[in-house]
Amino acid sequence: MHNSFGNIFKITTFGESHGPAIGVIIDSVPPNIPIKESDIQHDLDRRKPGQSSVTTPRKETDKVEILSGVFEGKTTGTPIALLIRNTDHKSADYDKIKDIFRPGHADYTYFAKYGIRDHRGGGRASGRETAARVAAGAVAKKILDLKNIYIASYTLAIGDIVAKTKDFAFIEKNPIRTVDPEIVDAMIKKIEEVKAQNDSIGGVIETIVSHCPVGLGEPIFNKLNALLGHAMLSIGGIKGIEFGEGFAAAQMTGSEHNDKFYMDGKKVRTSTNHAGGILGGISTGENIIFRLAVKPTSSIAQRQATVTADGKDSFCEVTGRHDPCLCPRMVPVVEAMTAIVLVDALLLNENK
Amino acid sequence: MHNSFGNIFKITTFGESHGPAIGVIIDSVPPNIPIKESDIQHDLDRRKPGQSSVTTPRKETDKVEILSGVFEGKTTGTPIALLIRNTDHKSADYDKIKDIFRPGHADYTYFAKYGIRDHRGGGRASGRETAARVAAGAVAKKILDLKNIYIASYTLAIGDIVAKTKDFAFIEKNPIRTVDPEIVDAMIKKIEEVKAQNDSIGGVIETIVSHCPVGLGEPIFNKLNALLGHAMLSIGGIKGIEFGEGFAAAQMTGSEHNDKFYMDGKKVRTSTNHAGGILGGISTGENIIFRLAVKPTSSIAQRQATVTADGKDSFCEVTGRHDPCLCPRMVPVVEAMTAIVLVDALLLNENK
Amino acid sequence: MHNSFGNIFKITTFGESHGPAIGVIIDSVPPNIPIKESDIQHDLDRRKPGQSSVTTPRKETDKVEILSGVFEGKTTGTPIALLIRNTDHKSADYDKIKDIFRPGHADYTYFAKYGIRDHRGGGRASGRETAARVAAGAVAKKILDLKNIYIASYTLAIGDIVAKTKDFAFIEKNPIRTVDPEIVDAMIKKIEEVKAQNDSIGGVIETIVSHCPVGLGEPIFNKLNALLGHAMLSIGGIKGIEFGEGFAAAQMTGSEHNDKFYMDGKKVRTSTNHAGGILGGISTGENIIFRLAVKPTSSIAQRQATVTADGKDSFCEVTGRHDPCLCPRMVPVVEAMTAIVLVDALLLNENK
Amino acid sequence: MHNSFGNIFKITTFGESHGPAIGVIIDSVPPNIPIKESDIQHDLDRRKPGQSSVTTPRKETDKVEILSGVFEGKTTGTPIALLIRNTDHKSADYDKIKDIFRPGHADYTYFAKYGIRDHRGGGRASGRETAARVAAGAVAKKILDLKNIYIASYTLAIGDIVAKTKDFAFIEKNPIRTVDPEIVDAMIKKIEEVKAQNDSIGGVIETIVSHCPVGLGEPIFNKLNALLGHAMLSIGGIKGIEFGEGFAAAQMTGSEHNDKFYMDGKKVRTSTNHAGGILGGISTGENIIFRLAVKPTSSIAQRQATVTADGKDSFCEVTGRHDPCLCPRMVPVVEAMTAIVLVDALLLNENK
Repeated sequence: MHNSFGNIFKITTFGESHGPAIGVIIDSVPPNIPIKESDIQHDLDRRKPGQSSVTTPRKETDKVEILSGVFEGKTTGTPIALLIRNTDHKSADYDKIKDIFRPGHADYTYFAKYGIRDHRGGGRASGRETAARVAAGAVAKKILDLKNIYIASYTLAIGDIVAKTKDFAFIEKNPIRTVDPEIVDAMIKKIEEVKAQNDSIGGVIETIVSHCPVGLGEPIFNKLNALLGHAMLSIGGIKGIEFGEGFAAAQMTGSEHNDKFYMDGKKVRTSTNHAGGILGGISTGENIIFRLAVKPTSSIAQRQATVTADGKDSFCEVTGRHDPCLCPRMVPVVEAMTAIVLVDALLLNENK
Repeated sequence: MHNSFGNIFKITTFGESHGPAIGVIIDSVPPNIPIKESDIQHDLDRRKPGQSSVTTPRKETDKVEILSGVFEGKTTGTPIALLIRNTDHKSADYDKIKDIFRPGHADYTYFAKYGIRDHRGGGRASGRETAARVAAGAVAKKILDLKNIYIASYTLAIGDIVAKTKDFAFIEKNPIRTVDPEIVDAMIKKIEEVKAQNDSIGGVIETIVSHCPVGLGEPIFNKLNALLGHAMLSIGGIKGIEFGEGFAAAQMTGSEHNDKFYMDGKKVRTSTNHAGGILGGISTGENIIFRLAVKPTSSIAQRQATVTADGKDSFCEVTGRHDPCLCPRMVPVVEAMTAIVLVDALLLNENK
Repeated sequence: MHNSFGNIFKITTFGESHGPAIGVIIDSVPPNIPIKESDIQHDLDRRKPGQSSVTTPRKETDKVEILSGVFEGKTTGTPIALLIRNTDHKSADYDKIKDIFRPGHADYTYFAKYGIRDHRGGGRASGRETAARVAAGAVAKKILDLKNIYIASYTLAIGDIVAKTKDFAFIEKNPIRTVDPEIVDAMIKKIEEVKAQNDSIGGVIETIVSHCPVGLGEPIFNKLNALLGHAMLSIGGIKGIEFGEGFAAAQMTGSEHNDKFYMDGKKVRTSTNHAGGILGGISTGENIIFRLAVKPTSSIAQRQATVTADGKDSFCEVTGRHDPCLCPRMVPVVEAMTAIVLVDALLLNENK
Repeated sequence: MHNSFGNIFKITTFGESHGPAIGVIIDSVPPNIPIKESDIQHDLDRRKPGQSSVTTPRKETDKVEILSGVFEGKTTGTPIALLIRNTDHKSADYDKIKDIFRPGHADYTYFAKYGIRDHRGGGRASGRETAARVAAGAVAKKILDLKNIYIASYTLAIGDIVAKTKDFAFIEKNPIRTVDPEIVDAMIKKIEEVKAQNDSIGGVIETIVSHCPVGLGEPIFNKLNALLGHAMLSIGGIKGIEFGEGFAAAQMTGSEHNDKFYMDGKKVRTSTNHAGGILGGISTGENIIFRLAVKPTSSIAQRQATVTADGKDSFCEVTGRHDPCLCPRMVPVVEAMTAIVLVDALLLNENK
């Protein structure tokens, strides 16, 4: 199993949902970047469970500790190790699924691949692993801050309810992390409805990167969109990604889709941005835009047909404490992975 | 610029559209696999220009030469180098775009990133680079053949015309490489229409992998879907990818989307396949299914606003010989990259 | 700064000498390997300071904690994170060298490269980093145990005193970790002499790998000897490595140096082993043998000319608690890195 | 089999001794570096066979062709592929060793590892593979030239005859590529003696890098000495490497070995250079110095005991055309690999 991501700015995560701890080592952080535990804690708090009625009521403090790489408040260039102890162990909750494969989860595939699994809370396959990514992303964001590169990730849709307007200042003011103040109540209502039915609902997360410099991305296999796609599809529950017009481009003509260039003073700009800020795998300097398909949470408190580890038909009912919709808490994860990809591309780009 | 893809089974491509040659080195090919130049030539012929009225009339012979790694008809475990000489040099066609950035192309971003570019035919950014991928994919497919793993890639849609039925035997019998004999004429007509208007059209390519063993993919950052996403988004012109239900999953509930397990003799199966054959990043043994958004060809023979390399507003008209729709010739590229990802995952999986 | 080593079996270390902790993530550990904290602690205790009169009197408990990857006493295939808290912080000892570069140390080069450094105890450049390697090596050795591959590392020479006989059972019974019971007293005396003079002494460490299977190593750039060389030269203080006859081979003829093959039943053997168990970068099945040149400890309590961080000539006197000879405590580090290289090669080799 | 070397500046070689061609792809070459085929040819001519009475009389033209990555005489940032056709095929020479394992060669280990081998001329294990390295090194040296970094590799010893003085201008003026005009005749005589006896002789190659900037090398696993060690030990026939004092350091005290710092104007220098220009894995700015143990050529025209591929005791006599000493033609290979490591370290270093 490989647990690293990135070429220069590389993160390596570890940890199981119900083991002693999870964490991450971040390699090749440039020296002399100011970083405090509270910077990282801020983002972890945005991802942590129990924030509102639309998320799981589990209580995990997700307190981060910086173990290395920071000296007198600044990075030294050495690897930054971040540790998050697991505290809300209710392993007994999982005893009844010890020998059963939950539909939609990785229980079966892990067992088939490794012949052993830590079944408690999904073990390594738990969404809890993403807390380590968020912690690493907080470090990446400090580097982007110094370059004035800004990432906005937000819930664009819950089920068939889609944001119409985009008020970025609203994102952290509502539990859905959506951008449309007019539509947030309908989204909350939708989630509460499926929750009442012991069910869950999917959604769409959109990300816009602004002030991205031209030139990020390696234009053959490590195109910026390919790296972002890799990063996003490595987040559990993401079923699709599209850039700019995305699947709508399949129905467009070239004369519609091509973004025409013009000079804005000394800067090359495009009059439209159907491409989503990337041409030939390299950032154009326009906003980078992509959307993610988020599947409905697999853990639902309904009786579902399944099989046992020893090969018998059976049923399971997942009774733990789960998010009825993944989007609100996944937004910081998407933002973190975007930051990690951008910093990696930035460091490689300066490498000319 | 990084030009390698893969972890164990690694390909490294080289070459510009109008340089002496393009090619690929394939590393970590298992020994004792039978392979002939004609196996590779067969797939190159499927990708090469000039196959029909719906593709570019350019004539490139794309004749492959095996330079190493094969001895007496079998692989030896050493790297396989494949060489394809460029023959249809009409570099003069490109003189007028030497100092201009074509909309939708990588001309501007390459120049901004590297400060120099081989402008002839797009240079390294040319779709011609994908011939090297197809050649490498042919080697990968020989390995999959021995495991009875089969990949079907095909054009699912051209603009708003979508295949309804799936006749896989039909794919190589029609110039669109679609699966629906009822709809192929409408697709051809659509392409000819946009071509007559000096325009182009987008489409959707779908891929189904059958007989895929359970257990492929590394479940954190190198999820099988993340690797496939990386591979597909590294193909120029792909604007999105979705697995299984994909973006439709965003509107589904968990009870709808979860694939229930059942025993089929001693085999664990799912009664539906909304997930597209991958759970937690690991193949389930069900068919792997994904779709790609293909943008309309950027090269269109219309007058378009653009800028020059020295920063002046201008116009360009791309008069070369181009495909009015990328899908027909991109199908073998998608198939090749899918094969490369699967072989890499297979080799890593045997590594337990 | 890159902090990972290995291709498949990959370790990533972190931590500064006087920061909160050091540790390691071990990736791609095969599942179902039995492992206990005490297995790892055993090797850490062999490396830890304060073991005898010939090592530093510093007292570090070096207590390891397994944070992930082990479930009910067995590996699960997920990454194993190991944590060692730093306890014997005497940071104040280092205040006087805060702005000075100690001769023979990495103080100057770190500062020149990164523009900042954690000066306490050498920070990241401290030999303390090797504790993380020893911890990872203990996991690797559990895997080798299951294959009956055995590594013996030992002190071959201290200064000009060289072991003549090789009693492997004696290694852990003497503070020098040498193999010759006749010579150990002379070695101890030599070390005590240099220590009394506030000086230090170099030495040679030899390693023999027995029962190594044929076929380990990738024969071009990742030759087994190249990987071992990389690993060994990455240990601070190692100034040279030689395999088999090593530098003596420079004076031999081909007829002397070539190891002739013969059949030992069904096994191909060589009648001599001048090559040190590796031909063309691949293990032959004979014992792998290599020797390392270990420099004298750089920290000596003598007044030495040096310069300050702000570019003035000055003097320093390193008064901390240091090993007068690196060999005794470096033996477990060499053994650990050897184990890590071998497991990586084993896992890659099964990948045919 | 992995055939790549380098982290940023990465080379991937291919080709068998008696296949159609050998070659290399060089990735991440910075753009706008002037490079001509004749630059590369110059170094290939230094490595090619048949240069003098002390090398093999085989005649290979080793004519290089640049296939990509260079446009109008300058690099473009895209991968540079270099092709060298094999011309002096005397495959029949090797028929009699088809089923026999030559002592000292990789015949047995390749066969044991891969179950198949191209036996002609050693196939992939042939020293001929190093021509691809020399070609890549010529590109690396163009980059170092622009930084005024200079590499001198030379034969320091043949058997027990050791150069006493160092006249770098003499290196390319004598067939041994040694540095001592007083000793060259004795070296030639020594080689002719062993050749007359159908035997071969080992030697030592030394390398000095001058004007190396401070700061190259990543200080944990990718120490500059570890990378150089990896590179050098990946050259067939190298049995050891030592930096600075090397194995002599094992007999030194710390007060002798430590290089004291002093200010030379604004530059930090050391008054001695026992360390060989590297501290803590990072270059100090002093000359980098290392020596390599070169084994005697394994191919000797003497009857030697060996075994057959089907497991029978036998004899072999290697009658081809071989170098009686590897050093003269290995010098350009050592220089090339040194250049490749330095450029890689340079590119990574600028990555702060």
